[in-house]
Amino acid sequence: MSAKETRKKGFSRRSVLTASATGALVAGSGIATGLIPNGAPKAFAAGGSKANLAPGELDPYYGFWSSGQTGEVRILGFPSMRELMRIPVFNRCSATGWGQTNESLKVLTENLTEETKEFLAAKGMKTYDNGDLHHPHMSFTDGTYDGRYLFANDKANTRVARIRCDVMKCDKIIEIPNAHDIHGMRPQKYPRTGYIFANGEHEAPLVNDGKILDDPSQYFNIFTAIDGDEMKVSWQVIVSGNLDNTDCDYQGKYAFSTSYNSEMGVNLEEMTKSEQDHVVVFNLKEIEAGVKSGDVQVMNGAPVIDGRKGKNKKYTRYIPIPNSPHGVNAAPDKKHIVINGKLSPTVSIIDVTKIDALFESDADPRSCIVGEPELGLGPLHTAFDGKGNAFTTLFLDSQVAKWNIDKALRAYAGEDVNPIISKVDVHYQPGHNSTSMGETAEADGEWLISMNKFSKDRFINVGPLKPENEQLIDISSDEMKVVHDGPTFAEPHDSIIVRADIVNPVNFWERDDPIFADAVKQAEADGVDLEGDDIVIREGNKVRVYMTSVAPQFGLEKFTVKQGDEVTVFVTNLDDVDDVTHGFCISNYGIAMEVAPQATASVTFAADRPGVHWFYCQWFCHALHMEMRGRMFVEPKEV
Amino acid sequence: MSAKETRKKGFSRRSVLTASATGALVAGSGIATGLIPNGAPKAFAAGGSKANLAPGELDPYYGFWSSGQTGEVRILGFPSMRELMRIPVFNRCSATGWGQTNESLKVLTENLTEETKEFLAAKGMKTYDNGDLHHPHMSFTDGTYDGRYLFANDKANTRVARIRCDVMKCDKIIEIPNAHDIHGMRPQKYPRTGYIFANGEHEAPLVNDGKILDDPSQYFNIFTAIDGDEMKVSWQVIVSGNLDNTDCDYQGKYAFSTSYNSEMGVNLEEMTKSEQDHVVVFNLKEIEAGVKSGDVQVMNGAPVIDGRKGKNKKYTRYIPIPNSPHGVNAAPDKKHIVINGKLSPTVSIIDVTKIDALFESDADPRSCIVGEPELGLGPLHTAFDGKGNAFTTLFLDSQVAKWNIDKALRAYAGEDVNPIISKVDVHYQPGHNSTSMGETAEADGEWLISMNKFSKDRFINVGPLKPENEQLIDISSDEMKVVHDGPTFAEPHDSIIVRADIVNPVNFWERDDPIFADAVKQAEADGVDLEGDDIVIREGNKVRVYMTSVAPQFGLEKFTVKQGDEVTVFVTNLDDVDDVTHGFCISNYGIAMEVAPQATASVTFAADRPGVHWFYCQWFCHALHMEMRGRMFVEPKEV
Repeated sequence: MSAKETRKKGFSRRSVLTASATGALVAGSGIATGLIPNGAPKAFAAGGSKANLAPGELDPYYGFWSSGQTGEVRILGFPSMRELMRIPVFNRCSATGWGQTNESLKVLTENLTEETKEFLAAKGMKTYDNGDLHHPHMSFTDGTYDGRYLFANDKANTRVARIRCDVMKCDKIIEIPNAHDIHGMRPQKYPRTGYIFANGEHEAPLVNDGKILDDPSQYFNIFTAIDGDEMKVSWQVIVSGNLDNTDCDYQGKYAFSTSYNSEMGVNLEEMTKSEQDHVVVFNLKEIEAGVKSGDVQVMNGAPVIDGRKGKNKKYTRYIPIPNSPHGVNAAPDKKHIVINGKLSPTVSIIDVTKIDALFESDADPRSCIVGEPELGLGPLHTAFDGKGNAFTTLFLDSQVAKWNIDKALRAYAGEDVNPIISKVDVHYQPGHNSTSMGETAEADGEWLISMNKFSKDRFINVGPLKPENEQLIDISSDEMKVVHDGPTFAEPHDSIIVRADIVNPVNFWERDDPIFADAVKQAEADGVDLEGDDIVIREGNKVRVYMTSVAPQFGLEKFTVKQGDEVTVFVTNLDDVDDVTHGFCISNYGIAMEVAPQATASVTFAADRPGVHWFYCQWFCHALHMEMRGRMFVEPKEV
Repeated sequence: MSAKETRKKGFSRRSVLTASATGALVAGSGIATGLIPNGAPKAFAAGGSKANLAPGELDPYYGFWSSGQTGEVRILGFPSMRELMRIPVFNRCSATGWGQTNESLKVLTENLTEETKEFLAAKGMKTYDNGDLHHPHMSFTDGTYDGRYLFANDKANTRVARIRCDVMKCDKIIEIPNAHDIHGMRPQKYPRTGYIFANGEHEAPLVNDGKILDDPSQYFNIFTAIDGDEMKVSWQVIVSGNLDNTDCDYQGKYAFSTSYNSEMGVNLEEMTKSEQDHVVVFNLKEIEAGVKSGDVQVMNGAPVIDGRKGKNKKYTRYIPIPNSPHGVNAAPDKKHIVINGKLSPTVSIIDVTKIDALFESDADPRSCIVGEPELGLGPLHTAFDGKGNAFTTLFLDSQVAKWNIDKALRAYAGEDVNPIISKVDVHYQPGHNSTSMGETAEADGEWLISMNKFSKDRFINVGPLKPENEQLIDISSDEMKVVHDGPTFAEPHDSIIVRADIVNPVNFWERDDPIFADAVKQAEADGVDLEGDDIVIREGNKVRVYMTSVAPQFGLEKFTVKQGDEVTVFVTNLDDVDDVTHGFCISNYGIAMEVAPQATASVTFAADRPGVHWFYCQWFCHALHMEMRGRMFVEPKEV
C-alpha cells in the first residue's frame, strides 16, 4: 500500500505500517511507531563527569565521526565531544577549496570511471558536489588500529575514500565499478588492512545502460574488496539479495554482510515480506584462489566472482537471520560476530570458528549461530566493552541494552539465564553506537556513544530541521550513565573512538608530500623555486603565477593577466610556525583555498572578468592579517 | 620590503615586521611577534561551571556564530557551546542541497548583478561556491534584538545575506554593486532595522572594467546602507580611505566605520605608513535628504553620495584615530562608541552626543573623543557587560582586558585613575569577542566569548590545519574566569549571544511559505495537489515529477524519464511529526536535498545517464528508513 493510498483510505499511517511493514513482532508488542519519544529527559549531574575537561586539558581519545549526507569526516576530541576539525571528502568546502584546488580535484577525479567523467562533463562538472558518508573506519594491524588511514564510503555516488592520518586530509577517492551505492564498509582487521570490504546496497542490472529497466529479476548486488594500500579494486562478488552492513573476523578468513532485502523486492511490502533474510559469508582465501585461477568475469577492469546462492558454494554461504538484519559487529573476543535484527527483536551471534564447517563440510548454515537473545525492539548496532559485554541500540525502544555474550550463549544452549544486564533510555531513536576502541581487540570498556537520530526537545529549538543527538554514556561501572547530550548537524551515522596515542599527525607539511607533487613538478618544469621565487610565467594564454606567503605578506603585491587567460596560482606557505595556515582568496572570482604551513596549494581559473581584483589571506594569520592582500589586474580584451 | 626581499636579505621576518610594519609602538614593547603563545595553559576547575549542562538541560542563550571562509552561519547552544545547526549561506551544502535545489538557487542567484551572472555563466556556474562570512548580526527593534532576522556579510564575493529566524534558513542574498568585498556589517539599532550598514573593504576603480588598473589614485571605497526589510540597496557613499569595521549609535543618527588604510596604500609598507588613520561618521539624516534631493550619481541602480574627505561635509566626518583602527563597538549605555586601535595600544571612545557639533558647527573632529585608554598590544574588538565595563581583546598580548568606561573618561579628563580592572590570558591571539546580549541595550554581563585565532597546543593534534579556539569566560563576578575551550573549524570571526526567549523558531513549515512558493505555483499550473498527488507530468522534454513523502515511503516507488530530459522532482514531506525531516537523494546522479516537515523542495537536472537509478531518503526517518527508496528509470536515447 502506498503512502498515498494509506492517506486516501483514511487509515492511520502508523497503525498501517505497524501491521503491514514492520510485521507481527512490532505490532504484537503494542508499540505503534518508532517516532514517539520514550521517557522524559533524565538529567544526570554532569558536573562531576570526567567528560568535562577543564580549559587546556587534552582529550584522551580521538573521535572520528562520519557526517552522513554532509559528505565530510569530523574529528572530535573525546570524551569532551568537541569538534576539532572537519575533513572535506565527498562535499565541497568553501574554506579549504576542496573541490576547487588542483590538488583536491586530482583526488576527486582521478579514479572516477570514464562513464562518470562523461556524465559529469555534460553537466559542466568535474566531480560530484555531494556525498553520503556513513562509515569511517581506521586501518588495522594485528586486530587493532594502527593510525595510518581512515576509510569511508559514499552511498550517494558509489565511492570509497581514504584519509591520511598524518595530515588529516583525504588523499584517495575511488569510484567502485559495477556496484551501486556503497553502504556498509569495513577494513580488514587481521593480519592488517589490507582489504576494505564494501557493500553495494542497491540492486541494478549488471550492465546498467538502460536496456534493462523495470525487471528486478535481472538486478544484482555486488560485494567489493578494495586494496587499501593501492586504493584499487581487488575483486568483486555477485551476491543474492541486497547488501547492508559488513564486518570481518579477526582471523583474516571471512567477511560478513547483512541483507535486508533477500527478497529482491522493489517496494516496501516486497522488501519486508519474508520472515527471514540472511547474512552472506565471504570466504576470502577461496575467493582469492578463484580470482587467481580465473573463475571470474572481468567487468570494467574488476575481476568478478559469482557468489550467488546456489552457485559455487566455496565462495559464499548464506546464513538465515530473522527479518531484515542491519548491523554487523565483530566482538573483541575475536570469536563472535553479532548480527542485529532490526525488525526482529533479536541479535544473532555467529561463532566464527564454526564457519569453516559451512564451507568444508556443507554444514547447516545456522549451525554457526550460537546465541540469539531477544533484546528489545529495533536492534540496529552493537558495541563491546572488551569484558564480555555488548551494547545494542534499540531504535524503536529508544534504549541501549547492555547484555553479556557468554550468558546469551548459555541461554541459547538451554540454560535459564537472562543475558540482559541493564537498559538505559536514550533520546531518541539510536542508530549506530561505538565504544572506546570497541571495534578492535583493545576495547577498553570506558565509554559508549549512542548516535540518536532524533533530538526533538533535547535542545533549544532551531527550526524545522533539528540536530541529531550523540549521547555520551559512561560504561566504566555497572550502571550505564548518560553524561552528555551532543548535538550534531546532518547526519553522523557512525563513529570510532581511538586512543590518542595511536594517532600522530604532523604540524607541518613535508615539501616532498605527494599531495602537491604535481605543483612541484610543474614548478621544476618552469624553472621556478617554489620556496623562493615570486614570479609569473606565461605560455600562450596559460599563465602560471607562483607566489610565496609569509605572514602578513604574499610574495607578490600584484600580478597582471589578460582577460580570457587560463590562470593557475600556486601559493607556497613558507611559515614554519605551528598553526599559521594562510588562505588565498580572489574576491569576486569565487576562488578560495587553504595553504597550511609548508604546503603548496594551487587553483586554476579563467580570468574572464577584467579589472582590479584583490586577493587576500582569508585565514587569520597575524595582527596585520587584513593588510595581507594584493591585486590581480585583468587587462580587458581589445574590442 | 617584500617577504621575498626579507628572506633574501637574511633578516628575521619577525624583527623586520616589528620594525617596519607594526611600528614603533610594538617594537618598543619588546614583543616581537603576534605568534608566540603567552603563558602556559591555565586550568580552571570546569566541573562546577554553570556552562556544563546536564543531559536534557536547555541552554539559556542562542549563540549565532559566523564561520568565516566556510561560508555558513552556525547556531550554538550557549553557554554549553554545543553546535546545534549549520545554516548554509554562501557555501554549498551536500546535505541540504543548498546551491542545488531550485529554492536555494533562487536565493543565491536572484539578486546577483547581470555582470556577475554572465561571469559565472561563462564558467558553467549559476552562483559562487564559496563565501567568507564574517559578521552575523540580528535585527533590532528599539535598541535590542527582535528575533526576526540575522544578517551576514560575504567578504569574498561582495554579498549580504539574510536568515529568517522562524525557520533558520537564508531567504535573501544580495550582491552589492559598486562596492568591493564587504567586510564590516551591522544592522541599525534604533528605531529598528531598518538599515544594514556594509563596508566595502577593498579599493578599486568605480567602474572596474579594466580601463584603470595600477592607478590607486583612481581607486575608491563605498559604504552601503541596505534596506533590511526589502533587501535592496538604499544608498551608497563614496569615502576616502578604505573601510574595515562598522557600527551605529542607539539614536538612529550616525554610523561609524574604521579605515586601516586611510593612506590608500597598496602594499604593507604604504598601508601602515601613517601614524593616524580615521573613523568615518555617516550622518544618516543628511544622507537621506541628499538622496531625496538628488545629490547623487546613480550607478548600477544605486544612488551614490560623494562623502569623500574635503567634499560635502554634511554627509561625513573623518575623526583621526591612532594607527590602523579595527573594531567599532557601541556601548549599551547608548552614548559611547569604542574604536579599537589594532596597531595602537589604545581604544578611542567617542561620545555620540558630541557628533552633532561636528556636522552643525564644524567642531574639531577629535572633540568627540572623550577617552583613549592604553590597554595593551593589538586591541581589536570590545564587548560590554551593561554595568559600565568593557572587555577588549588584545591580539598581540593574547589577553582580554577588562576596563571601566567611566574611569577611562576621567583619566582622559586628567584624573589620576587607572581604567584597567583586570586582564586574563586567552589561548591564543583573540580577534572578535562577544558578551551575552552585549551589542544591545540589554547587555546582561553574564558571559564573554573570546574568539581566538590560534589553538596550537590546546587540543589533541589534528595535523597542520588547527581549529580556532573560542574561549568561554565567566564575567558574572569581578574576576574573569576562562571556563571552557571551544574548538571550531575555519574560521568563526564573530558571534552574537542572544537570550533564548527572543528567538522563537517553528517546528513545521507553513504550506504558504514564500521559500517554496514557486513550486506551489508550478504545481497549480500543472493541476497537481502537492499534498496529495504522486504524478509525473511531461511537457516536451521537460518532465515534472511530483511526489509526497511519509516515513518510510515516497509517494512513488518508481518513475520513468527519457535520457536527455530536463527533470524536476518536487518532494513534499507530509510528515507532521516534530523532527521527521526526509531527504531525497538520487544515487550516482549527484542529487541530494533536505525536505523538512511540511516543506516542499525541488531540484532540476538533466537525465543524461540511462539505466536504473535508485532514489532514497538520506535523512534517517524511521526503522524502515533504509527501505525508503524507489527507482528512476532513464530510457536510453534510441541509437
